[in-house]
Amino acid sequence: MGISGSDASAITLGQASEREALRRIFPRLPQSSATLVGPGDDAAVLAAPDGRFVVTTDMMVHGPDFRLAWSGPVDLGWKAAATNLSDVAAMGAVPTALVVAIAAPPETPVAWLEGVADGFREACAELAPGCGVVGGDLSVSATLTFAVTAFGDLEGRTPVLRSGARPGDIVAVSGALGQAAAGLRVLFAEAVHASGEPDADRFASVAAAHPDTVGAQLRPRPPIADGPRAAASGATAMLDLSDGLALDARRVAEASGVAIDLDTSTLGPDAATALRGGEDHGLFAAFPPGTELPGGFRRVGVVREGQGLLVDGVPFGERGGWDPYLEWDGGQG
Amino acid sequence: MGISGSDASAITLGQASEREALRRIFPRLPQSSATLVGPGDDAAVLAAPDGRFVVTTDMMVHGPDFRLAWSGPVDLGWKAAATNLSDVAAMGAVPTALVVAIAAPPETPVAWLEGVADGFREACAELAPGCGVVGGDLSVSATLTFAVTAFGDLEGRTPVLRSGARPGDIVAVSGALGQAAAGLRVLFAEAVHASGEPDADRFASVAAAHPDTVGAQLRPRPPIADGPRAAASGATAMLDLSDGLALDARRVAEASGVAIDLDTSTLGPDAATALRGGEDHGLFAAFPPGTELPGGFRRVGVVREGQGLLVDGVPFGERGGWDPYLEWDGGQG
Repeated sequence: MGISGSDASAITLGQASEREALRRIFPRLPQSSATLVGPGDDAAVLAAPDGRFVVTTDMMVHGPDFRLAWSGPVDLGWKAAATNLSDVAAMGAVPTALVVAIAAPPETPVAWLEGVADGFREACAELAPGCGVVGGDLSVSATLTFAVTAFGDLEGRTPVLRSGARPGDIVAVSGALGQAAAGLRVLFAEAVHASGEPDADRFASVAAAHPDTVGAQLRPRPPIADGPRAAASGATAMLDLSDGLALDARRVAEASGVAIDLDTSTLGPDAATALRGGEDHGLFAAFPPGTELPGGFRRVGVVREGQGLLVDGVPFGERGGWDPYLEWDGGQG
Repeated sequence: MGISGSDASAITLGQASEREALRRIFPRLPQSSATLVGPGDDAAVLAAPDGRFVVTTDMMVHGPDFRLAWSGPVDLGWKAAATNLSDVAAMGAVPTALVVAIAAPPETPVAWLEGVADGFREACAELAPGCGVVGGDLSVSATLTFAVTAFGDLEGRTPVLRSGARPGDIVAVSGALGQAAAGLRVLFAEAVHASGEPDADRFASVAAAHPDTVGAQLRPRPPIADGPRAAASGATAMLDLSDGLALDARRVAEASGVAIDLDTSTLGPDAATALRGGEDHGLFAAFPPGTELPGGFRRVGVVREGQGLLVDGVPFGERGGWDPYLEWDGGQG
């Protein structure tokens, strides 16, 4: 497998001109309903009806962030979209548009990049209808790299920051906890060669045997609509769960100057993975006491006076969570 | 030279946590006057006072886009900022903010990344005061890669597209033509080892002997303020000169359904380099007949009925310009 795909006769990025490649890719991309001037000029122009816009940017790099033995082009487009959409939702905004910069090796087939475009289209259609790709850049590089910037519309709401949680608030999450981490664990345990290197041949049976966890890892489905719902329900703090519940909860506690106490009885049968697993891309939020939790939010703890993270009332010492610099093993797979 | 720099004892990206690295880098970045919510949350929130915003994104990749033997960290931050600011200006907008995603090898010193931040700050201060970095992402990668997204405020003006040039319009440019290409040519001719590989030791004397052209290549100074000036003066079409005057003029001609006739007597002593050289990052614009050209704009031709590019009245057959896919030699230097 890998990026060269199965059709060796296909035209590659190194053979096509930038213009030819873009002519094939652009029609597959999702359209944004916020577009005033779309792709093809020096820049796009987007509507920002309430006089503000939300912006976030995130890279996905071959090696530390994904393995081509396990992720196809549609998966990668999907995940690059979903993770950025989730950051927009976590401010309480509705995602409106993306710009996408891709750097890929010259031997990448243009057809493979069309698959990436399909992933962006499918993710926007399912997770954030009306959101689309309004511009981008396509470069050659020795390392396949995606850099996505996402925009959102607050629709007049106050942005929900990490810093607003208050003692007594309900702590709640929306979206699955620990599934993406469990998926990565099973891939590294079973979808590898004897050497430990990712193995595309073993991947299919592993994915079939563990569709929920592997799916959560490769095509996360963040509860995007719950971000604006939480803001409308008065959420006092919110963030995207990207580095594991424990680490992300600690961030909210630190930013808000409070303690957060998580209740493991609410975290399902594998509370350890729910606490430590990264890449959930669910939403973590605090709500005033008595709030009827909106959408898929469910209570997982409470905000207390004090500082730092508690679990079942006890200070939680583990660092927890994923740090890409400290943990990448150098492989690309 | 290269990315590991001269201070081998310095802490590297692979040794620092993301949080530590960002804590050192963020204070050096320029501030944006459009910031409503700044760095540190899931996303930033920016003001878009006229209910719209301009957005563009561009990558710089080690190898095809720059060589570390010739560009230091301040140069790279500067150039990544300047090229994106120029795309915003070419719509007639005032640049307001940038988000910056950087992927760098684990052995990159954090101090080197501080230099990149300094480059962003210096470029914004000189080229687009009030514009700043409002968010970003820092990743590890085998290939040093910058992905910048820039935003602009149209201040109520209509965006100036490529497609509005009309027969009879004045064709004008602002900014130097061919200097950046001449700089790259002298670097490849003289600042190299006998093998042709970029040579940091020879670079200093070459840069000292050719400060204008090498400076135009490594730290371009696009005439950012002339973008909004052109829009205010009624420019009918405008674009950033990134791939050489001939190719970019042809793009405006095609988008506008007209012919553009360039007058080589206006292009200085080396008209060939002015026509073909890439990375000028000046502005190309069409203005209605009789317009008093604003700022640094000067007449270089006229729009005619017809199609395609003419030079001194004769159809110009050469393709002209730079295509990164077709022309990268695979080296990184």
